[in-house]
This record gives sequence, structure tokens and C-alpha cells, in this order.
Amino acid sequence: MENFKIYAKGKFLISKQSLIVNNKYTLKPFSKTWLADENLLNQTIDFCQKIFSQCLALSSYQKKEALLYISQQILIQKSKLARLLSIESAKPITYALAEIERSANAFYIAAEECSRLPKEYLSLDNVPNGIGVEGIVKYFPIGIVAGISPFNFPLNLAVHKIAPAIAAGCPIILKPASYTPLSTLALAKIIHNSNLPKGMVNILPMERHIGEKLVTNNNIKLLSFTGSPEIGWDLKSKSGKKKIVLELGGNAGVIVSKNVNVKKIINKCVYGAFAYSGQICIHAQRFFIHEELFNSFIKEFKNATVTLKKGNPLHKNTQLSNLIDEKNALRVEAWIKEAVSKGAQIICGGKRIGNYIEPTILTNTNNSMKVYSEEIFGPVICVEKYDGDIKTAVKKINDTKYGLQCGVFTDSISELNYCFNTIEVGGVIHNHVPTLRFDAMPYGGIKESGLGREGIKYAIFDMLEPKILVK
Amino acid sequence: MENFKIYAKGKFLISKQSLIVNNKYTLKPFSKTWLADENLLNQTIDFCQKIFSQCLALSSYQKKEALLYISQQILIQKSKLARLLSIESAKPITYALAEIERSANAFYIAAEECSRLPKEYLSLDNVPNGIGVEGIVKYFPIGIVAGISPFNFPLNLAVHKIAPAIAAGCPIILKPASYTPLSTLALAKIIHNSNLPKGMVNILPMERHIGEKLVTNNNIKLLSFTGSPEIGWDLKSKSGKKKIVLELGGNAGVIVSKNVNVKKIINKCVYGAFAYSGQICIHAQRFFIHEELFNSFIKEFKNATVTLKKGNPLHKNTQLSNLIDEKNALRVEAWIKEAVSKGAQIICGGKRIGNYIEPTILTNTNNSMKVYSEEIFGPVICVEKYDGDIKTAVKKINDTKYGLQCGVFTDSISELNYCFNTIEVGGVIHNHVPTLRFDAMPYGGIKESGLGREGIKYAIFDMLEPKILVK
Amino acid sequence: MENFKIYAKGKFLISKQSLIVNNKYTLKPFSKTWLADENLLNQTIDFCQKIFSQCLALSSYQKKEALLYISQQILIQKSKLARLLSIESAKPITYALAEIERSANAFYIAAEECSRLPKEYLSLDNVPNGIGVEGIVKYFPIGIVAGISPFNFPLNLAVHKIAPAIAAGCPIILKPASYTPLSTLALAKIIHNSNLPKGMVNILPMERHIGEKLVTNNNIKLLSFTGSPEIGWDLKSKSGKKKIVLELGGNAGVIVSKNVNVKKIINKCVYGAFAYSGQICIHAQRFFIHEELFNSFIKEFKNATVTLKKGNPLHKNTQLSNLIDEKNALRVEAWIKEAVSKGAQIICGGKRIGNYIEPTILTNTNNSMKVYSEEIFGPVICVEKYDGDIKTAVKKINDTKYGLQCGVFTDSISELNYCFNTIEVGGVIHNHVPTLRFDAMPYGGIKESGLGREGIKYAIFDMLEPKILVK
Amino acid sequence: MENFKIYAKGKFLISKQSLIVNNKYTLKPFSKTWLADENLLNQTIDFCQKIFSQCLALSSYQKKEALLYISQQILIQKSKLARLLSIESAKPITYALAEIERSANAFYIAAEECSRLPKEYLSLDNVPNGIGVEGIVKYFPIGIVAGISPFNFPLNLAVHKIAPAIAAGCPIILKPASYTPLSTLALAKIIHNSNLPKGMVNILPMERHIGEKLVTNNNIKLLSFTGSPEIGWDLKSKSGKKKIVLELGGNAGVIVSKNVNVKKIINKCVYGAFAYSGQICIHAQRFFIHEELFNSFIKEFKNATVTLKKGNPLHKNTQLSNLIDEKNALRVEAWIKEAVSKGAQIICGGKRIGNYIEPTILTNTNNSMKVYSEEIFGPVICVEKYDGDIKTAVKKINDTKYGLQCGVFTDSISELNYCFNTIEVGGVIHNHVPTLRFDAMPYGGIKESGLGREGIKYAIFDMLEPKILVK
Repeated sequence: MENFKIYAKGKFLISKQSLIVNNKYTLKPFSKTWLADENLLNQTIDFCQKIFSQCLALSSYQKKEALLYISQQILIQKSKLARLLSIESAKPITYALAEIERSANAFYIAAEECSRLPKEYLSLDNVPNGIGVEGIVKYFPIGIVAGISPFNFPLNLAVHKIAPAIAAGCPIILKPASYTPLSTLALAKIIHNSNLPKGMVNILPMERHIGEKLVTNNNIKLLSFTGSPEIGWDLKSKSGKKKIVLELGGNAGVIVSKNVNVKKIINKCVYGAFAYSGQICIHAQRFFIHEELFNSFIKEFKNATVTLKKGNPLHKNTQLSNLIDEKNALRVEAWIKEAVSKGAQIICGGKRIGNYIEPTILTNTNNSMKVYSEEIFGPVICVEKYDGDIKTAVKKINDTKYGLQCGVFTDSISELNYCFNTIEVGGVIHNHVPTLRFDAMPYGGIKESGLGREGIKYAIFDMLEPKILVK
Repeated sequence: MENFKIYAKGKFLISKQSLIVNNKYTLKPFSKTWLADENLLNQTIDFCQKIFSQCLALSSYQKKEALLYISQQILIQKSKLARLLSIESAKPITYALAEIERSANAFYIAAEECSRLPKEYLSLDNVPNGIGVEGIVKYFPIGIVAGISPFNFPLNLAVHKIAPAIAAGCPIILKPASYTPLSTLALAKIIHNSNLPKGMVNILPMERHIGEKLVTNNNIKLLSFTGSPEIGWDLKSKSGKKKIVLELGGNAGVIVSKNVNVKKIINKCVYGAFAYSGQICIHAQRFFIHEELFNSFIKEFKNATVTLKKGNPLHKNTQLSNLIDEKNALRVEAWIKEAVSKGAQIICGGKRIGNYIEPTILTNTNNSMKVYSEEIFGPVICVEKYDGDIKTAVKKINDTKYGLQCGVFTDSISELNYCFNTIEVGGVIHNHVPTLRFDAMPYGGIKESGLGREGIKYAIFDMLEPKILVK
Repeated sequence: MENFKIYAKGKFLISKQSLIVNNKYTLKPFSKTWLADENLLNQTIDFCQKIFSQCLALSSYQKKEALLYISQQILIQKSKLARLLSIESAKPITYALAEIERSANAFYIAAEECSRLPKEYLSLDNVPNGIGVEGIVKYFPIGIVAGISPFNFPLNLAVHKIAPAIAAGCPIILKPASYTPLSTLALAKIIHNSNLPKGMVNILPMERHIGEKLVTNNNIKLLSFTGSPEIGWDLKSKSGKKKIVLELGGNAGVIVSKNVNVKKIINKCVYGAFAYSGQICIHAQRFFIHEELFNSFIKEFKNATVTLKKGNPLHKNTQLSNLIDEKNALRVEAWIKEAVSKGAQIICGGKRIGNYIEPTILTNTNNSMKVYSEEIFGPVICVEKYDGDIKTAVKKINDTKYGLQCGVFTDSISELNYCFNTIEVGGVIHNHVPTLRFDAMPYGGIKESGLGREGIKYAIFDMLEPKILVK
Repeated sequence: MENFKIYAKGKFLISKQSLIVNNKYTLKPFSKTWLADENLLNQTIDFCQKIFSQCLALSSYQKKEALLYISQQILIQKSKLARLLSIESAKPITYALAEIERSANAFYIAAEECSRLPKEYLSLDNVPNGIGVEGIVKYFPIGIVAGISPFNFPLNLAVHKIAPAIAAGCPIILKPASYTPLSTLALAKIIHNSNLPKGMVNILPMERHIGEKLVTNNNIKLLSFTGSPEIGWDLKSKSGKKKIVLELGGNAGVIVSKNVNVKKIINKCVYGAFAYSGQICIHAQRFFIHEELFNSFIKEFKNATVTLKKGNPLHKNTQLSNLIDEKNALRVEAWIKEAVSKGAQIICGGKRIGNYIEPTILTNTNNSMKVYSEEIFGPVICVEKYDGDIKTAVKKINDTKYGLQCGVFTDSISELNYCFNTIEVGGVIHNHVPTLRFDAMPYGGIKESGLGREGIKYAIFDMLEPKILVK
């Protein structure tokens, strides 16, 4: 068992308090790391302050060089990293490999952005007293960034904070999820060997009450949080004088319009519904199917679902495995039971076996059931029909407190335009499930699903502070 | 009869050679202007050189103020200008009024662009030897601009050269068409009363051989020509060291796909086919109709066409009037006859009455006929069916030497995507005829239809020369 | 005495609680308005919700038309509005007139931005699984905006929230300062006559505890606050799920380098120091003068200061008048006394006469004195020498908790570069005082001076929410 | 002796006509390649037509992958390529190595641009009839590109056409200089091993009269020419219907203002004057020195110049070697003699030894001498004083038919602003010689120095054709 030290102040350290990380499939201890205490956190913040001027002075060449190095090393260590990620999260290895590749790509995109940081050159001579006046707006690194990332994409969602911080020239302190700190700590070793100033990137597993010091400390200028809506919104009120970006969850919907070939889209739908057992912020949770297609959709969907392979996530063919822990498995089971008790019908699945939940298709669901109205974060979906008028489908998809992404299957221009203009989300995915995310696109939600956008370029923008020279 | 003097060097002048401008409907003399000789042209170029530094020094405030003034005055004099334009061009008064409004709007858009001229602020520190190096790119007026504009939009196509030149800070010498110089000379009076440096805008009717001196003179830095392909491409070879933009013609096509309500689109189609008797660069000349809709389309189109009102363009209800001159009417008549002799079938129209040509719908046409393969610049269209596969329609629409715009009626996303990606034109107009142009959009063709784009922002860009400060 | 009704839900209303607005020079009651209660506020929020879809559907043409109308009407009513503003704020009439003109200009700039709202078209095909994938990012109005504006620019700082909201398509509820609600309520009458949906713009004077409901209500999506740092930062913690922009104050500094002609800059310095008696967020409060110029600067500055005319703000020649109220006059007087007691030397001024404070130049000041370390918001400045090394001056100018703007007088490229890169502010004004603001530029501070930027384009950006269509 | 085949239609070919390439230092034959005849050229154009749809369909991922591969391979083969380049051009090896690195970097920059090709999303709803109308502007590859590149940067100036063409998705036919075709043909081998469609990049050495077919053929849509003004402008008149970009030469100037430390800048000046014996388009040919610094500048410059090492370009310490051929050496010698005969004074150098010309500093020169008024393309410079007023220096620097770049050494903001605004060039280099070029910056001249700009992003832009979708 390899242990993983905390990465702070440019050093790999241990603390008084260790953290055992389980194999989420075998449920046995797999590795050990440590939890940072308040003292170490404060030292880390001080250290970041101290080296801020070095970070600010990095040329785009130096930042690009580091980011490309990290990207390449991640690809070189792909198998090792994917295995680690799979074990700590019970994520099937093919998905784990895809996540590692996406992380490498996210660093690559950040490298490309380094010499394209926003810069403006403005005419200010459009008023009588402005003759000859111009403005130069340069965007400087905002200062220390704090990142808090969740368990479901242990590496890539951390990378979406680390890579932009490097490109922007900001020191960053990242708190990974306590379930899954190892992938990020493995990344720390790669970063340590790059040419970045030591201490620019810090990975500190912490208990939540220590982590909140990150939120309240005014020497930190930006908090980027990815996690549950409940915690996210609470942190906002505690965030002091800093900027805050919140990437929270949802109960994303899918519309399947009349003019669609069900057989051709079913694999995408199964992916959206059950990839990583639905433990994805943009999990496709609610499906609205044109009434003429409803029966065939249900049939095809069930057929495809029951063939999904469950098992050890390290096996190449495994498609489903344990949820992250028993607490969550019990919760999902309870929500299914609540739905059934209120009239929902189980098309397939519905059972819990230890920490594993069968992929579950429900129908006859509605907003009174948690499986429909809350974020399930499990392999459970609701499939309902709509009467064929796209407005009905949009009304249903919007009837939620969340607004992250949605998927719309249609070949009709007028239907797609209506959907894009009226569905209340951050992203509409055409002919695909909402579970699709490209690392370069603006990503984030409205309503209770979040505040602001990630996506490398957009995350970098938030980490910069404009300064104008009027001359 | 009001006469219109040449506007050069900030003065209204006459020359030894007068030009009588006819009423294109009554065919009687309507007004008089003068033709600039080579001497006056050379003086004008010299004068532009002399005041170039004043033009270059104009603040965006000063340019905006002038452009807004001109825009407002055009609207104030709308009726008078429209009447003038209608008489000199035989353009029905409702279209003439629309053109005047568009011209006012083009000046307004140019006013908005003044403080948004391109400016770049670049990082150059993405190479090892570039640490700390930045670039400021400022776009300066390129120098004297020459514009040559055609008869069919006597005012607006001149405005699309004049308004950008003012916004860019360039002196301009505009040669209007000899058929229709009056609207532009009327505009000169408005411009003269603005706060612009006298001599910045010059309107010089000229014979073609004098106009060619504009093309060859190397003190002129940009030639913007709108007119026939034949002349345009010839000018390019004579254009010396200057930049050149060519807005030429075409034989634009329209596709009507299966999923379209013919009744709802027929008015747009009639507009595209017969507005200003087809004397429009983006006249809808070739229609490709899904086979299932073909018969009903022909029927509806014919019904709508035969009700069009012809007559004196000054009458409010007139929709069709004379072509610009007898030469063109004879040419169009001859082309129709050639087509019929090669097998084309006349659905309606086909006759010439003096300078008037009936709105003519042909079918059974093909690429061997001039009405199909050349730019007709008259009220004649070809309607053909296609077999229902959008690829067939695209193949037909692309089978021409021209490539200006096209119209595509469809509600299918996949069809529209295919059309946009593969039709060889400068613009694809969705659910409308190619005859649609917004003054703010990039406008221009490929293949033999032109070089470069107009549209206020794009025209301004061509009139600027970048200069980088590396620091 | 003309009264001014509350403007809410598209109507001019009164409430149970009236608010008497004094003439700030005579200290006598001048006019009456009313204070909105919680009930009216809630109704207004509901009304905004109801008409949001109308606001969202406004074309850029409709928004532009309204904004240009408002801009023109402000200019037409310039004298009347300036007089009103001068009386309610004791702002000298020449400054009041300038503010009215700037407000008209801010609406004009917003009109220009309407068809330039951010829109993105992205390639997402830079990953193996992205072949053919593109993204369209459209920016939609964020929802209801709340604005809170201060007394010192009663009209223009409200306009910097209202005009962007209109351009963005957002309903807005603006709370003007209770000292000076009248100019904004006069503006409401103009807005009411525009073509905007009734109820899109609402002007509600309120007591602070009612105003805080604006801050906490989650149906409001953005709070834009301009005012004191103390209140601003407190509001942030109460702002619930909404975005927040804070434009707070500072104690801006000026550097005068060696190679500067003191006589030529003294008028700018006097303007920065004493315009509107220093009641300006970007008041030039701390001057750092190259040691070789120090004595002559003090002498010239004093000479120019003692000639300033005080009196009734409505008189054309008046340059100085009362502070906004006695409380503030007493506070400023107390701060001067504190400074003197700690060793500061008065070059001129220093006395209070009623609500009037003499323009006061101090030297021998330091960070232990409030006149130096806090925002004075009064006609008091500190002038100190620096040893000639620009780094010393920058160190002094940065030694504050604030960071809004600064002025740098120098002809040295290396000095200006050093200042721009290292002074911790939102804006560096070259060869002018920090008191300069162009309405189109990004404006705002860092450190305790604020969060985010205003300036029409930047304010609009904050009022928009991106939505991506992945296709 | 390794031979280098022509690279056309995805194959390495020979022709009937071979071309012996000399070692430009030993003057002995070094290698052999072949000259394409008209038939092969036509076949190549046809082949490019045939594969155009494949090139157009390349995703940015595929293009990026190829460009990064090429960039990396160039770096891997750096020594070999530099040696080849040095031998064929007599370029000292350190400069040759720098050129190879720049070429690798140019491919890297092009890779970064692939997913950032211009794309526009426009509001067109700013007119009454535009409600709801939007425009999507996609930029498609323009078609086949022809490149003609010169001997002085045999690889990098070809790369500045090839790399953008790949990024834009255009097939390219490049004609290298007959003096120096080998580096580019070596690059062809690398390109051949990338994943690009075979035949997308073609390298065809040709005699000039065959090369002109590239210019006249209308199937080629863009000609990008780098070379002498005389040939460039002639080609423009023959270029048919295609776009044309001309990167020509000049006689760049340098201003050294009063407030400059001569010792600190002398190495930069020597670099600008004598790097690659002045055979550089942006060779610093005319120096204008503030009168107070003139004597010390001359002295320092001479001291630095006489220590320059001449010899075999392959030797690491060599700084100067032969000119490209005897014809040019004789021409330069003749120009020096002409200057002396007209009164010029030789400070140092002036002699020809075979194909070698000593680094030559002249003074007392003027516009009547070719060394001053024409592009010398040899190691000869003119150093003159100016009276201390920057306007005098600018007047002198502008007194030429050329306008490529200039260098300005000053610390005065007002002087630099004056220079930037009034020197008639494409680029002003602050505190450096005009000989500086970063591969990402817009590069090109005005007046007789060219038309359009290169620099990866700018070159790509020219290779794209916009198409708007109005919807």
C-alpha cells in the first residue's frame, strides 16, 4: 500500500491525523493520506502570499511549458492513475481512463490559453473630453485561489480548478473530497516536477470544518466550489470579501421528440442514465418522450439496461459498480421506495445489494417524489411521456428548482430553437444526453444549480482581475 | 428641374461636360448633373492627400457626431430623397423608401462602430525570448478610398462605401452610376453640412475611362467596386498597388424542402423573384422545389405573380416598372427567347413592352440557357424540381460559376446543416430568399461573385491598416 | 414645490410614509417624495417577475430605440435636471450639468451595446470525440436586478445600473439614496414615456432595513451596490443566491514624478482634490510628489486652492459648497483635528463653517491619521514628498486597504510601466488625477474598494447569463 | 551527398530537370533536387482540388495533432536541419538553429489556433425588420493556397505559409527559392509522416516562368508571396481572381533618442545591422542618432562591428559569412562605391572579398544614394544624426518609398507616442531594432513594402472565406 502525503508549501508532508482511503468496491482499506490541520492551512496561505509575486511574474511561455509537461506526464502515467482513481471511487476502469485523458486534455487546453489571457485595448475618445484618450486593460492574477472538489470526478474536477489557476498565474489551495483524495495527490507529484514555483499548487485533504477556513479567509480572493447545492449555497454566505463560483448539481432532463430513431439514441440515453451509476452532476435523471415513441423507448431502454455488466470496477467490461458508500446506497434505496409508495412503477431494477444499486427505470413519477424532484446521484431515472407538443415537454423539464443541462433529441429547427430559448439551464445538448461535457466549453448551472461557469477559458477569466491604464 | 452639381474638394462644382439624367419611367429628361474630367479627378485626389491628416485625426466622437447627423437628415428628407431615387431608377416608391431608410440605418451603424474600430493587445511572451514583451495593434485609416457604385441601389450601395470610409477616417472619392447619380449627389448636400473636414467625401460622376484612373492611381489605397463581374475582374488586374474589394453579381438559388408550407412562403419568393424587376445582385433567379411540392408551388407562385401591379414607380401601389434602359430590356427579352428556343416553358409572363418586362416564370430550364447560367438582372426566374434528396438540390444550386447568396426553406436541422456547409456562397438565408440583406451583416460572394465582404463593420476593417507597437 | 412620486410597477405612486428632501445649501425643505414599504417592494418584485418574459423578448432595436429616446430627453431637460440635482446634493451647477450630460451619454453608450451583447460561437472539435461538434453561447438577461446608488452622483450612478439593465433586458428595482432621490425620480418620468414594458424600471426610495429585502430576496438575481465599503461588504454576506457587484470607495493617490511641469498639472490636481468637495469615490486624497518638485507643488497648489469660489451651488461660478449634511461636516472636521493633533501641518483651509468645510491641504501626514488611511469624502488632501525613486512612491500609494484608482504624472515609459504593473488598483490614470472616469471604461476597485466592474459594457455583462447550445 | 526529391501529390518525385544546390560558403555543389515542370504543377493543382474536401473536413483535433507532430519532429531533427539550412544559405549556424526553433514554434502556434479559427455569432435584430434574426458566420478554408518564399529564411518563411494553410484546412503548393530549396524539402519528409491527407502540402522548386502559372491559375484562391518588391508588385497585376498577400522588403530605420544609454543598446544595433549580413527584410539599414549621442554611438558601433567573426557558417563562432551569391556581392560593392562617390564616408568596412562583404558603416549618406534609398540586402548601414527633435527623426525615417518596420530607442512616453502614430510602417519596435519579429505578431509593410500581414493568426485569417447563415 502506497501512502500519499499532503502537498503544501512545495513539500510533501504528513500531519498528526491520518486518513484511511478505502477501496470502494472491496470496502477494504486501500491507502493512507493525512488531513491538514488549521495550522498547516494557515502556513500554506502565508506561503502562497509570499510566492504570489513569483506566480504573477510567470511568462506565458513558462506557464505553457509547465502545463504541457503536466499534460504529457498524465498521459504517460495514464494506466497507473486510472487504476488509482478506479479503486478510490469504484468508477469502472474505462470511465476512469476517459477521465484521466480528459484531465490531460484540460491541462493542454489551459496551456493554449496562456498567451490568450484577456487583454483589451479601448477607444475612450467617444466623448467630447476624450479626444486622444485610450485604455489598455490588462488582466492580472486575482490572488490566491481556493478549490473544493467532489468525489465523483476525483481528478478532472480538481484539474478544472488547478489548470486554470496555473494559466492565470494564481497560487491555489485545493481540498479534494475525503472519499477520493489519492488521484489528486498523485497529480501533485507530477506538478512538483514541473518548472512551476514551488508552493503554487497545494493539495490539502481536510475535514470540512477546517476547509471552511478556506472559505472565510480574506487573503484568498476566489473560492471555486464543486459539490452539493446545500453546502455550496451555505458557503456563499460565509465567503467574506472573495469572489465565488459554485458548480452544483441538478436533476437534468432529456426530451425525445417525434422525429427520432429510438434505436439510434438508446446507447446515448443509457450512458446518460447509468454512467458511473448516475453519480454525475449532469446525470440524465428525467426523460420526456414523445407519446408516439414512449412504448418503444421504454422497451429498448429496458433491454439495453438489463444487459449492463456490474462488478469490480477494475475489470475492463464492468459498467456498473458500487456507489461511493453505504450511506448513499441506503438513501437511493429509500428514495426508490418512497417513489413506489407514491405510485411510481418500476420498469427494471430497484434493488440494493450492499453498496450497489441496480440500474433502475421508473415511470409514473412526478414532482412529489424525491427521485424526480431532487438530485438522485444514483442509477435511477424517471421516464415519462409528453403529448407531442414541445411546449409541454419544456414545461415539464423546467418544473424543477435546478437548471444545469438538458438533452434534446430532434431534427426540427423550430423545436430546437424553442428548447434553446426557453429551457432554464446552462447548457442544451442537441441530439445527446445532458451528461455530455467538453472541457473547453462554458459549463455551469442557473437556479439552484450554481453561480458562474467553469470550462478552462471561463475559469481562467474568473481568476483574473482587470486593471485599466487610461492614457 | 433641379440640377445637381459634382461634389469635390468640399465644393459643389460644374464641369464642361453635362450629364442629362432621364426619368426612367417616362423616359424624359429629368435633371442635369456634370461629369468630372481627369483634371478634376486629379485635383480631387490631391486634395484628399492634403486633408488626409485631418481625417486621420478625427476622434470617434467627431466621426460619430457627423454620421448621426447624416443619418438623421436622411430620415428628415426621406420623402424627397425617395422620390428622386424612384424617378432616376424606376424603382417603385415603396422600395425606394425602404432603401432610404436602410441608408439612414447604415450611417447609424457606422456611427456605432466608430469607437469600436479594431484594436488589439497581444501577449508576445509565449516564446523564451519574449518574456515581458507585448504588442499593441492600432488600426489606422488606410488612405484615400475609391468607390464605384451601380444603378440598382443608387443610394444604399454608395452609402456602404461612404459611411465606412467616414468611420474609418478615410477620404473617399465615389463614382456613382451614370444612370442614377442624383440620390448620391443629394446626399452630398447633407454631408456638406456635417462637421466633417471639407473634401473628405467626394461624389464624382465620370465616364468609365476617367473612372479607371481611380483604379490605377497608386495614391488611392483601396478600391471598393460594386457592379458587374465582367468589369470588376478586369479592374482587379489594373488596380496597381491598392487593395481591392469586389461586390459582383450572381444567379442566386432557392431550395424549398418537403416540410414547408408553400402558401406561407410564396410572398417571400415573389419578393425575391420580382422586387425591382430582379435588378438586384441577390435576385432569386433559380428555384429548386421538392418534387412533392413542385406543382402546388408553381400554381401558387403564378397566382401571386400575375396580380403584381405594374406602372409608374411613384404610385404607392406599383410593384413593377421599367428596367433601367432599353438595352437591358432587349437583352432580357432575347435571353427569354433563347431559353424558349432551347426548350424552356413559360409559366407566365415572357413579354417585353418598351422598357418593361413582364414578371416571367420559366421551367424546363437548364445550364445551357442564359436565363439559368448567367445573371439575368431582370424579372425572370427558373423553377425546377428536385428529387427530394437535399444533396441533389445542393448539387444543382452549386452548378454555376457564381456564389453570392442562397435561400433555404426547411425545418430540418440536418438539411440546413448540410446546406450551410456545402452550398458555395457567401450567405445562406434560412427560411427566406437570398434577396435578404441586413446592412450590418458580412455581405459578398465567392467564385466569380466577388472578393471580400461589405457590411459596415467589414467594410471599415478593409479601410484600416494595422500597425503594431512591440514593447 | 413639486413632489416626486415613487415609480413602481409602471405607475407613479405614493405611500404612507413621506420623505422630505432638503435643499442641501439652504438646509430648508425643498421637495417631497415617499418611501416604499415592504409590501410595495414585494409587489414590485412580483410585477418584475411577471413582465420578465416581455423584457427578455425585446429586440435590440426596441432597446436601442428606448435608450436613445431617454438619452435625448435627458439632454432636452438638461437645465431642469441639473438644477434639481444641484439643489438636492449641493453640487455646484457646472458639475451638475456635467453629470447630466454624462448620464445622457451613458444611455447612448448602452444603446450602442444593444446589438453587441456577448455571443460566442465555439469549436468543440479539438478532442477526439468532438468531431463536428460546435457550441453556440447566447447570453440571456439574468433576471431581476437590484440597484442601490449613493448620494454623490445622484443621477449618473443610478444610470450606470439602469441603462445596462435595459440593454441587457433585465427588469430593475433601484433604491436611490434618501438624501438625493429626486433626480432619479425625474428620470423615471422620461423612462415612463419610452417604449419599454411598463414596470421594467422601478425607482423606490426606501429605508435601509426595507432596502435589505432587495438584498436577501432570491427572486432577484443580481445586486449592484455603489456606496460605502462598510455597508457593501455587509450586504455581500446577506445576498443569498444572487450575484453581487460592489462599487465602494477609497483614498486614491497621485504620483507626480520629476519630469513634470507643475504649473501645467495644477488645475487637474485641484479638480481631483476639491471637485464636489471631495465627495467622490475617486477623490484624489493622497499626493506623492517628487522631492525636487515638492515645494513648488505645495506653493502652486495652495495658490490655486485659495482662489476657489464657495457659495450657492446654483451660482455659475461656485466651485465649493456645503457637504451633504452636518454629520459629515462634523466628521471631516474631527478627522482634520485628529491629524493636526498627531503632527499634521495645515497648508491652507482646515475650518468648518456650518456644513461647509474649507478646501484643506495637509502635509506631514501618515497612515496613523484618518485623513490619510480612511476615505475622507470631504475637501481634504494629504501632500507628501517621495525621495525620487518611483518604487518609493508606489510603496506609499499601495500602503492602504483600498484600491480603486490612482493618477500618475510622468513622461517616463519605464516609470509608467512600473506603476501600471505594481499599483494595486482597478485603474491607473496617466497624466491625470484618479478622479477621471469615462463612462465606457471598466471601473471598479480591488482590495476593500469593491468587487467587479461597472462601465456600461461591463455592467451589461454581469446582467447576462450564458447558455450554450452544443450541436 | 543526399538528394532531395520534389514533394507533390503526396509523393516524392523527380523530374527531367535537376537543380544543383551549392554550398554557399565553399561555392561547391552540395546537393541535388529537381525542378517541377508545368505538367507536374498542373497535376499538383488538380490533385489539390481533388483532396480539398478531405482538407476541409479535418477537425481541429486532427489538424492540431499534425501540427504538434511536425513541431516536435523539427525540434528532434534540429541539428540536422540547421546544418542543411546553414550550408545552402551561408547562414551562420547559431542563426540557423534559431530559425529552426522559430519554425517549430510557428507550427506550435498554428496548432493552438486550430480550435480558435474565427467564428462569429451576430445579432441582426437592430432594425425593425430584424426581430429575432441572428447570423452565424463560419470561416471555411478558402481553397488551394500558393506560397512563394525567398532564400533568406529558407525554412521559416515557408513555414509561415505552410503552417497556417494546415490550420486553415487549405491544400498548399509552395515554391521555395531556387538558392535554398533543401530545408523545405527536408520539412516535407516530416510532413509526409504526419496524419495529414497526402497531397495537402506540396513543395515544388520551379523556374520563375513556371512559378508564374501558380500566380495566374484561377483554381488557386490565394497567393502568398514573400520576396522583392519589384517581383511582388508585378505578380499582383497577374494574379487573376485570387486574393494576394505580399511580404516585401524595405530599408528599415532606427531612432536613438537622447535619453538612451548607448552602451546598453549597441549589441541590439549590431544585430539589426549585420545579422545574416543584412540579408533580412527588416534589416536595420538607416540609423538616426540624437546629435548629443552621435559621436559615442559611432565609436561604440564601430568597436563592436570590427570584432565580428567571419568565416565558415558551420563554425559555432561565425557571425558573418558569404552573401547568397556573387551577383549580390557585386551589387552591394557597387552601391557602396556609388555612395562614396557621392560623398558618403566609410566608418569601417566597405570591401568585398569574393562573395563576402565586410560589415560596413557609412555616414554622410542621403536619399540620392542607393545604400540609403533602396533595400541593400547586405551588411551595410547608414548612420546619421538628427537635431534632437523627434519630429526631425521621424521625418527622415519616413522619407522612403518603403514602410516595413522601425526601431525606436527612448524612455519618453510622448516621443514613443509620436513615433507610433506617425512613422509609416507596419511595426514599431520599442527599445529594439526593426529586425525583431515574433512569429505570433502581425507582420508586414505598407507603401511599397507589401500588402496584408503574416503572423500565424493573421495568415490563417487570409486563408479563410466567411459564410454567413442568417436565421
